[in-house]
Amino acid sequence: MKTESTNPMGILEENESQVRSYSRSFPTIFKKAKGHTIWDADGNAYIDFFAGAGALNYGHNHDEMKKVLIDYLQNDYISHSLDMGTEARVDFLQTFKKVVLEPRNLDYKVMFPGPTGANTVESALKIARKVTGRELVISFTNAFHGMTIGALSVTANSFKRHGAGMPLSNTVSMPFDDYIEDSCSLAYLEKYLEDKGSGVALPAAIILETVQGEGGINAASKEWLQGVEKLCRQYDILLIVDDVQAGCGRTGTFFSFEPSGIKPDVVCLSKSIGGYGLPLALTLIKPEYDQWGPGEHNGTFRGNNLAIVAASKALKTFWSNDTFQKNVQGKSVVISETLQSFAENYPELKAEARGRGFMQGIACGVEGIAEKICEEAFSRGVIMETSGPQSEVAKLLPPLTITEEALVQGLNIMEESIKAAIEKHVAS
Amino acid sequence: MKTESTNPMGILEENESQVRSYSRSFPTIFKKAKGHTIWDADGNAYIDFFAGAGALNYGHNHDEMKKVLIDYLQNDYISHSLDMGTEARVDFLQTFKKVVLEPRNLDYKVMFPGPTGANTVESALKIARKVTGRELVISFTNAFHGMTIGALSVTANSFKRHGAGMPLSNTVSMPFDDYIEDSCSLAYLEKYLEDKGSGVALPAAIILETVQGEGGINAASKEWLQGVEKLCRQYDILLIVDDVQAGCGRTGTFFSFEPSGIKPDVVCLSKSIGGYGLPLALTLIKPEYDQWGPGEHNGTFRGNNLAIVAASKALKTFWSNDTFQKNVQGKSVVISETLQSFAENYPELKAEARGRGFMQGIACGVEGIAEKICEEAFSRGVIMETSGPQSEVAKLLPPLTITEEALVQGLNIMEESIKAAIEKHVAS
Amino acid sequence: MKTESTNPMGILEENESQVRSYSRSFPTIFKKAKGHTIWDADGNAYIDFFAGAGALNYGHNHDEMKKVLIDYLQNDYISHSLDMGTEARVDFLQTFKKVVLEPRNLDYKVMFPGPTGANTVESALKIARKVTGRELVISFTNAFHGMTIGALSVTANSFKRHGAGMPLSNTVSMPFDDYIEDSCSLAYLEKYLEDKGSGVALPAAIILETVQGEGGINAASKEWLQGVEKLCRQYDILLIVDDVQAGCGRTGTFFSFEPSGIKPDVVCLSKSIGGYGLPLALTLIKPEYDQWGPGEHNGTFRGNNLAIVAASKALKTFWSNDTFQKNVQGKSVVISETLQSFAENYPELKAEARGRGFMQGIACGVEGIAEKICEEAFSRGVIMETSGPQSEVAKLLPPLTITEEALVQGLNIMEESIKAAIEKHVAS
Amino acid sequence: MKTESTNPMGILEENESQVRSYSRSFPTIFKKAKGHTIWDADGNAYIDFFAGAGALNYGHNHDEMKKVLIDYLQNDYISHSLDMGTEARVDFLQTFKKVVLEPRNLDYKVMFPGPTGANTVESALKIARKVTGRELVISFTNAFHGMTIGALSVTANSFKRHGAGMPLSNTVSMPFDDYIEDSCSLAYLEKYLEDKGSGVALPAAIILETVQGEGGINAASKEWLQGVEKLCRQYDILLIVDDVQAGCGRTGTFFSFEPSGIKPDVVCLSKSIGGYGLPLALTLIKPEYDQWGPGEHNGTFRGNNLAIVAASKALKTFWSNDTFQKNVQGKSVVISETLQSFAENYPELKAEARGRGFMQGIACGVEGIAEKICEEAFSRGVIMETSGPQSEVAKLLPPLTITEEALVQGLNIMEESIKAAIEKHVAS
Repeated sequence: MKTESTNPMGILEENESQVRSYSRSFPTIFKKAKGHTIWDADGNAYIDFFAGAGALNYGHNHDEMKKVLIDYLQNDYISHSLDMGTEARVDFLQTFKKVVLEPRNLDYKVMFPGPTGANTVESALKIARKVTGRELVISFTNAFHGMTIGALSVTANSFKRHGAGMPLSNTVSMPFDDYIEDSCSLAYLEKYLEDKGSGVALPAAIILETVQGEGGINAASKEWLQGVEKLCRQYDILLIVDDVQAGCGRTGTFFSFEPSGIKPDVVCLSKSIGGYGLPLALTLIKPEYDQWGPGEHNGTFRGNNLAIVAASKALKTFWSNDTFQKNVQGKSVVISETLQSFAENYPELKAEARGRGFMQGIACGVEGIAEKICEEAFSRGVIMETSGPQSEVAKLLPPLTITEEALVQGLNIMEESIKAAIEKHVAS
Repeated sequence: MKTESTNPMGILEENESQVRSYSRSFPTIFKKAKGHTIWDADGNAYIDFFAGAGALNYGHNHDEMKKVLIDYLQNDYISHSLDMGTEARVDFLQTFKKVVLEPRNLDYKVMFPGPTGANTVESALKIARKVTGRELVISFTNAFHGMTIGALSVTANSFKRHGAGMPLSNTVSMPFDDYIEDSCSLAYLEKYLEDKGSGVALPAAIILETVQGEGGINAASKEWLQGVEKLCRQYDILLIVDDVQAGCGRTGTFFSFEPSGIKPDVVCLSKSIGGYGLPLALTLIKPEYDQWGPGEHNGTFRGNNLAIVAASKALKTFWSNDTFQKNVQGKSVVISETLQSFAENYPELKAEARGRGFMQGIACGVEGIAEKICEEAFSRGVIMETSGPQSEVAKLLPPLTITEEALVQGLNIMEESIKAAIEKHVAS
Repeated sequence: MKTESTNPMGILEENESQVRSYSRSFPTIFKKAKGHTIWDADGNAYIDFFAGAGALNYGHNHDEMKKVLIDYLQNDYISHSLDMGTEARVDFLQTFKKVVLEPRNLDYKVMFPGPTGANTVESALKIARKVTGRELVISFTNAFHGMTIGALSVTANSFKRHGAGMPLSNTVSMPFDDYIEDSCSLAYLEKYLEDKGSGVALPAAIILETVQGEGGINAASKEWLQGVEKLCRQYDILLIVDDVQAGCGRTGTFFSFEPSGIKPDVVCLSKSIGGYGLPLALTLIKPEYDQWGPGEHNGTFRGNNLAIVAASKALKTFWSNDTFQKNVQGKSVVISETLQSFAENYPELKAEARGRGFMQGIACGVEGIAEKICEEAFSRGVIMETSGPQSEVAKLLPPLTITEEALVQGLNIMEESIKAAIEKHVAS
Repeated sequence: MKTESTNPMGILEENESQVRSYSRSFPTIFKKAKGHTIWDADGNAYIDFFAGAGALNYGHNHDEMKKVLIDYLQNDYISHSLDMGTEARVDFLQTFKKVVLEPRNLDYKVMFPGPTGANTVESALKIARKVTGRELVISFTNAFHGMTIGALSVTANSFKRHGAGMPLSNTVSMPFDDYIEDSCSLAYLEKYLEDKGSGVALPAAIILETVQGEGGINAASKEWLQGVEKLCRQYDILLIVDDVQAGCGRTGTFFSFEPSGIKPDVVCLSKSIGGYGLPLALTLIKPEYDQWGPGEHNGTFRGNNLAIVAASKALKTFWSNDTFQKNVQGKSVVISETLQSFAENYPELKAEARGRGFMQGIACGVEGIAEKICEEAFSRGVIMETSGPQSEVAKLLPPLTITEEALVQGLNIMEESIKAAIEKHVAS
């Protein structure tokens, strides 16, 4: 009955803070989910092109992980353990080493910070400042690294920064790859580092996303990433890659930076590392920089064992060989080609296709139209969101496990939504 | 086999960051847990006097919550939902209102920040700064509010602050209740606020813990709390109570501030609010101060539905009437009296008993002896930790659900540990 | 003619910024000055109880210095020389050593910062931070050290701090001697330094005025100064005495800290060090802390040779033996006794006498009455100003060279002004 | 006698702080000065191509100002007056209005901050922050604005910034005109202001020097200045021109920005505004932005009447008509052409000529050679200094009153010094 499904929304609105956001974009009460599909309480099904903002790379409620979770609960294995040793933790550390690090010839110490993206970023900034004894950190235009004061200080969005309610300091925002047309952001960065009169001190670290998810699906080129790494080596600056959203296969490889060949000093992981969408975060630190004192950065939920066992299962299931990765890369081509065709076929959008892997979108040159497209998509059964400083990018973040059929179906709905949005825009 | 239980610890040490702490204090691999007991992989049982640093007020793996969790998983109800509307969230909001807020005559909007204590604190500081347009926040000596830069800036411990690697600003540390013997910290605070020449600007907020858990189990008096609240009202300062550790019944009432009668403007909850030890945090905001813009503070794990359903179940089970609360208060007397007797009977400790409810400890005047007591306790099958700037307090945080029998047994072991610690101290 | 003397004030008001202040308190155009007397353009004479806010300890236009200045100008000796070597500078360095440092058994390197009090303070903070590698500086309630951002950050007045337009950081304001009745501000300071959980890091320096001129004529006791110095030695903190206003004999000895026996690591001088009221400032630094790089703190007017020759002459004239000092100390008793009698005889003021030497005042407990007293005094031919966060102190800073006759005359006028102010206050 | 001239230098070295700089570059004791000539105590004459770092635009000890100063002293006119009204101040305000502002169609309120360049900059930043309610200020690469913390925060040189001993915040360093070859620094600035995701908030002010004196004699183009002004108007940002070194005729017009036609909101003046090299500074503020409270920025030496009367005399003598200005512009051509020829004729320097008016130099591409040139020049009787982050520019700042003959003579010596420097460089 309509009254029933409406009431709960009223309860939300009455009791939850004004800060709530996605319950405004997707104004319904969700109930069940499986793979790439979510159902609301009225039984309506939605294709999920948002995937928990990248936290559900393996889809909702994956059966194998679910089994592991239920089994873990049923056996009364320890669930909450701070950062004490547990069998779950030991197994995860082994699995991560064997499945992720060794095959990629990477060597990192694994830190469990508090289980959010912001927390891994905060820990990364702290260790970089400690190791170098420097205070400044360079971040980039349109970067997003989280909402706590440290993470926010390297986040570029002015609305979000303003929310700090105080000046954010000890950071400098440099131009990301291709920030100004025909201009070389790398040359700028180099000049600022090299010139003793640039007004910018030698930083402790440079932090970057290889593909800026919140900032407008801006994908850095390999050359730019390699150039930044080179500068870091030249000036003894730590290179931090925030792979919270772009990692765990999102761009077609486990780490988003693999194709570029760079080896960051610190890597931030969260979102999909938990496998099942449960809170977990990791900070990977090159052994020589693992100079923490015991408990120097701590937190209550560093031993969220349910997330940890799901995480281990996800790694074993999807990353033990390259089948999954190749499948993702194959489907990525479908996305790229489709978005490219949208940009070409609907010049009214003044759009360009952006991104790579399962992290793509179309940036629209018409104000408000990307939001309109997402609205129309929701009404047609697809959940997708905007991105970028002006919400100008209609963004796709489907589960990597989506079937090609569902992917195509979702993209078709997206096309219909584009048409509808254009029509309404013209009419208005 | 010994080899087996040793190996996993080696794996931890090799692969996990130096930052790990509790696996150093409790050097074993834990496996199972129930109520107030934890078992390691070798089958040794431990009485848990630490309770996840206060995150397991209802003990480990409580059967009723466990049932709810398994049921939720089995039905493929939506697990990860960002901050979209879900049935689990709606039920929680209703439950929290009926079971917690209404009976206490409190009216708050509920915000779901990222699921850690640091995150609720960061959100509280932000909203206070936004609402007042001021930048300064007053916190107290020996306060602990978390490890992200914003939370750290109101945390007093110098080791932890130093870990920031940069100056922490826009905060002032005022003396907590009884910080200096025979002196009135309230008069000091009042003078600083009143005097235009104090060097301290009018703050956006005053943030405090009613019992400082990490800072040495310092319990503020009712009078002091009321005095601080009065100053907040007089100068239009927001009063934030960080009830992350002291809340959810830890001190004998749901909120730790209930006996004082104060009504904070913002309340921070985390740790035990999740019921089962799963990551969850809430920021409670008086409706008139709920001035967030949509998404102004966001995060990926604001819809950790497993934690949310366990949280609802915990509230219904333990807080629908006052039976549980009275039981906790009764057992608290046992703890108080026992710790008092320890302080009296073992003058070698130069100790005083501190704290209230299930958050008590003995502060020792002999360097290193509190740590020794905890070490001895662990070797005898009790898990407990120290607190305070010099780790000078042997702290008790048992699950509130502990049986009186187990409580007494644990306290007996603690006494033996005190004796052993004294003996070894004398010998050394 | 009235029109003439009125017009110029109109020109000021039209053309000078709103920031002007003393031309509001003393609304006339001044023309000539000699010793303790100033004449306005209409020929009205005023006894100067303000002495350039302490910059004219030797009175206006002292004949011997005037002769030296005219001679220097007439010979075309180099006037502006940056910080190049000049004969004037060499003579000053020798004179300062022989007349000031050696007799007091003090050993300092002399730095010429920019010629203002703020600049010597800024340089003192910088060198302390450099030498210790720490960032925090402790200052005191009601301190005044200047209006540039660094100096302002250690200044306590909220109106002045607010003028920064941005948060002032890396400083903490501790309670000055006697800040809270019956409370021991030294014990607070000690506890904050000693306790690892105080929330206040080990500072680079503690900066203080022995008598707070702008902050309300608060004179620190010898015991307090000695206690602060002891803490500085214990924790390797640099002790900076800002003697800009209280130095050069103002309190009865050349340095204000002489009676306490403390030996600051850095001393800030300005105001009367120039002798004739010309801009000059010095930063005295213990040799072991003189770790500047060449030009690390520079400025255009570090070689204001006119001020330097007047400064040398002043030292030779007044400080070669103790005649002047004893004379000042003698007259100070007259001031003390008179102000004490005012406080007793006019209970309507609810006043207490404060300060020492030629830096005294009466703090009034009735709002606005101190300002009224100064207004009345001006109308009767005495120039004096208020001090304190609420302008609650009627302050006396006469030239040290004032005759006893003029001093008594001025104090008599002050008494009449008190009577008039009380009368008008009662009437209002 | 040699012993005599050596001794004084020894006195300097023993007693003055290590921070001293110019007495190292020019290791002699100076005694007399007139016009463009300085004599040391041994009677050696030097052509002054440094002019007090731009504080002596009218040369040393100008006879007409000298006469005014002696007369002022002899009459016992008030010398030090804080910011009280004096006849000297009123005359200056009138003169400045008639001679400087009105003919240039400019309308500013005149503020007298403390008498240094740093102080006028500090006051400019404060009023901009107050008026806009914003905290950020944009400055430029290679900017120099002074050594106090506020001024230093907009100064770019890393050695000088590092001297702060703490992070400098609330400022961003943008690329100055032509910072990177063939790149458009203006487009960069525009993008950062316009993009909500740039990471740079809307600033209170943009502060700039039209010719960067300390930063390497970088002269901004008219187009760039106009572009910056346009952005300021578009985004309601205050434009502050720091004309401390480039003002008072140094570039050929009274204000350096006159040729560009821009109208700054705030102008900072110091150095040569005092005429005779005596400390004086002005902050010019558009009437609508003169929103100071009385005394909100104050200082002891705001009424340095000797400097004020010399300043009035200088304005009347040199700026009442355009004779002086034209003469300066004529001689500037000589400088430009000569420096240009040096750059062409001595390719070993890898040099380019830079700057405009009497603020020019040659930037050398060979490390250390500019310093060598200045050394050689000093040994041949010319005083000149280097500039730029690597001291790579041999800089000319002669008095504007220098005769063409002396100018040519000095340039000839400079050429000889270049030859000698090249020879020694090759030899080494």
